[in-house]
Amino acid sequence: MFDKYYEEINVGEEWDSKGRTITETDIVNFAGVSGDFYPLHMDREYAKNTPFGKPIAHGMLVLSVATGLMNLTPGIIAAFYGMDKIRFVRPTFIGDTIKVRMKASDKQERNNGTGVIACKTEIINQNGDTVIAGTLRMLVNRVPVGAEV
Amino acid sequence: MFDKYYEEINVGEEWDSKGRTITETDIVNFAGVSGDFYPLHMDREYAKNTPFGKPIAHGMLVLSVATGLMNLTPGIIAAFYGMDKIRFVRPTFIGDTIKVRMKASDKQERNNGTGVIACKTEIINQNGDTVIAGTLRMLVNRVPVGAEV
Amino acid sequence: MFDKYYEEINVGEEWDSKGRTITETDIVNFAGVSGDFYPLHMDREYAKNTPFGKPIAHGMLVLSVATGLMNLTPGIIAAFYGMDKIRFVRPTFIGDTIKVRMKASDKQERNNGTGVIACKTEIINQNGDTVIAGTLRMLVNRVPVGAEV
Amino acid sequence: MFDKYYEEINVGEEWDSKGRTITETDIVNFAGVSGDFYPLHMDREYAKNTPFGKPIAHGMLVLSVATGLMNLTPGIIAAFYGMDKIRFVRPTFIGDTIKVRMKASDKQERNNGTGVIACKTEIINQNGDTVIAGTLRMLVNRVPVGAEV
Amino acid sequence: MFDKYYEEINVGEEWDSKGRTITETDIVNFAGVSGDFYPLHMDREYAKNTPFGKPIAHGMLVLSVATGLMNLTPGIIAAFYGMDKIRFVRPTFIGDTIKVRMKASDKQERNNGTGVIACKTEIINQNGDTVIAGTLRMLVNRVPVGAEV
Amino acid sequence: MFDKYYEEINVGEEWDSKGRTITETDIVNFAGVSGDFYPLHMDREYAKNTPFGKPIAHGMLVLSVATGLMNLTPGIIAAFYGMDKIRFVRPTFIGDTIKVRMKASDKQERNNGTGVIACKTEIINQNGDTVIAGTLRMLVNRVPVGAEV
Repeated sequence: MFDKYYEEINVGEEWDSKGRTITETDIVNFAGVSGDFYPLHMDREYAKNTPFGKPIAHGMLVLSVATGLMNLTPGIIAAFYGMDKIRFVRPTFIGDTIKVRMKASDKQERNNGTGVIACKTEIINQNGDTVIAGTLRMLVNRVPVGAEV
Repeated sequence: MFDKYYEEINVGEEWDSKGRTITETDIVNFAGVSGDFYPLHMDREYAKNTPFGKPIAHGMLVLSVATGLMNLTPGIIAAFYGMDKIRFVRPTFIGDTIKVRMKASDKQERNNGTGVIACKTEIINQNGDTVIAGTLRMLVNRVPVGAEV
Repeated sequence: MFDKYYEEINVGEEWDSKGRTITETDIVNFAGVSGDFYPLHMDREYAKNTPFGKPIAHGMLVLSVATGLMNLTPGIIAAFYGMDKIRFVRPTFIGDTIKVRMKASDKQERNNGTGVIACKTEIINQNGDTVIAGTLRMLVNRVPVGAEV
Repeated sequence: MFDKYYEEINVGEEWDSKGRTITETDIVNFAGVSGDFYPLHMDREYAKNTPFGKPIAHGMLVLSVATGLMNLTPGIIAAFYGMDKIRFVRPTFIGDTIKVRMKASDKQERNNGTGVIACKTEIINQNGDTVIAGTLRMLVNRVPVGAEV
Repeated sequence: MFDKYYEEINVGEEWDSKGRTITETDIVNFAGVSGDFYPLHMDREYAKNTPFGKPIAHGMLVLSVATGLMNLTPGIIAAFYGMDKIRFVRPTFIGDTIKVRMKASDKQERNNGTGVIACKTEIINQNGDTVIAGTLRMLVNRVPVGAEV
Repeated sequence: MFDKYYEEINVGEEWDSKGRTITETDIVNFAGVSGDFYPLHMDREYAKNTPFGKPIAHGMLVLSVATGLMNLTPGIIAAFYGMDKIRFVRPTFIGDTIKVRMKASDKQERNNGTGVIACKTEIINQNGDTVIAGTLRMLVNRVPVGAEV
């Protein structure tokens, strides 16, 4: 979706990302980057005694991988604007494969040559179940006027 | 804050995390984990020609580091429930040091021995400026009844 | 270039990648993945006494980053076929920004629904100097016949 | 082989490296360093529908690990000179163990106290199958004349 | 234990850490950071022919993870002072979960507002077996006099 | 030193490693692997207010890099046996280059085809200052009797 300028994206437009499998390596590496070593992610003995029964991926890892799966063309995105009503609705286990489904739901022009695109976003696993849902807002550049971007 | 059970956390309670400096390494490693190599983060020549003038950290990196700075005692957090109205209000540059300020703003009991704590959350840099603001919702265990946790 | 099937790529076609800055982190991380800790890359005191005067990036790191900068659409590339006459013609230092320039130079059909595309490839830094040159050969899928890809 | 100066290496000389197992972690980490997240490496569902049936290691990962397995003594290698006719002849799967077999095949003196050693190189897995074959060219220092190296 | 100043820690005091599972990722990542690619850790074929029968974690990895499991409150630890009679008594395999058990065994005041706390330390796996034993010495700050820390 | 069997190493023998520069990346990556995010290593603002004035490398990082700098030939080392009287005598800052100096100080035969070599070990920076000192004990294989190793 984000290979187009603000004016070129239409409300209602949909886009599906390619997929990526969440591995044990991703969980361990994300703990290392974020500093979040909560035992639900990092301690198999601990996880056995939770309702999940085994380690689950950090919600923020799955959401971060989702941002990597978006198709951001250079020159298009000015900034990540915000997120609304993100809900971590199901766990992601080691070996699950996720993809992102986005639908442009709102547009708001701004003064400085940009606009905010709101996207209803679902992160879906290999069984078709939604694991994270919410709205992402991206600050997108407008078509440059008589200038190369 | 998250070293206490649901009943023990009071609305209005505040908590400050320790700090962490966001380094170039964090940006490169987060790109590697998330797959987000957008040139605003990874290409100095590109970044020179944006309003930021130099590479900025991924908003999701800063938010992820913030979750690592929270003080999560094992047995307390059942799951990350969600996030509301997250806004990336200022950029984080290489070398900036962030900390997290949280204030319990709402509590909602649930049936299964847990409750949701909402926290007004600000991520603040070394100049005292808020770089990310929003509300985090954590699913917190209630005091176990006649059982060790 | 690699967002198209074998038949759709024409000899002579050119393509430029986006850019990426090679950081100290990339060198250290690549040493960790490859196991190549040769002191020309990892020891500043050693590097001072070489003609380069300071650490240089592994040639294989720069080439690996180049493969990451290629625009590979899922379903298109069947395999990486080979490389010919790769020459590491100039050093890449910490902070240099590289991009990839490719030109389809040859096509060879194969039996199993694929073909080999040869690409004259140059990796170019922020000064316009070629740092690595050679030919890459990709095994590319042909347009699927009456079948979803 | 590369614990000796240019004059001390004889054409025809052979050398075998120690081994290293290619793990899922190596694939995920190499994707992170290179930025190559092509789904043949990163998406188990996608890989199921390819002739390989499961994820394969990046060819450049296996080649990079091979360079790490070479025995490079400080002061010997001046630079990585180039590679010729590299062919990725078989896939490397998670859990395969590779080693490198090199044979000096050519020597070319140069003016500046160095020479180029060409090595026929095979990367071989635990079944004795060649997975990558080609020629590597290393710029090797000559025995220093009345000077410490 | 290390959430208290020097004067507040009593000889004989005991403390148990939370746990962490040692994964294949940890071994591969530690090899990358340390540069220790000894085949007992990195080559499954090699490891088969040792008394261990399969790869084992680096002793220094397990010890390093143990330092990460200690509860170090900012402002408390001035420096890591030393280690005595560290013995790697049992192997740690992929999938083992370790925790740290410490007991303050000695205190020694020093001039500069600090003191050394010696801790008998055992790293214990999920079967209750000690894998590493020894004494760690931490330089701990004393209660600040009329000053905020 | 560790390219020889137990019987071939003589007490009094000395060995110097090659060098490696400790970078900010090493500190951040070691924090990620170990889980030790103590602010003396990770928070520049905190470090300013310590006697060090800026972040220092984890002692365990420097010691771990030292083990990577040792020259361990496959088939020689049976296991890491232990460490005695390790003292972290000086800080290592970002950009310092270390090497390892070892001297075999004691040998003890054991029953199972191995022996313990004790080595007085010093880790020395680019100024010639010792940053870590102590004794490492390695379990080394004896020359195999009528058998290939």
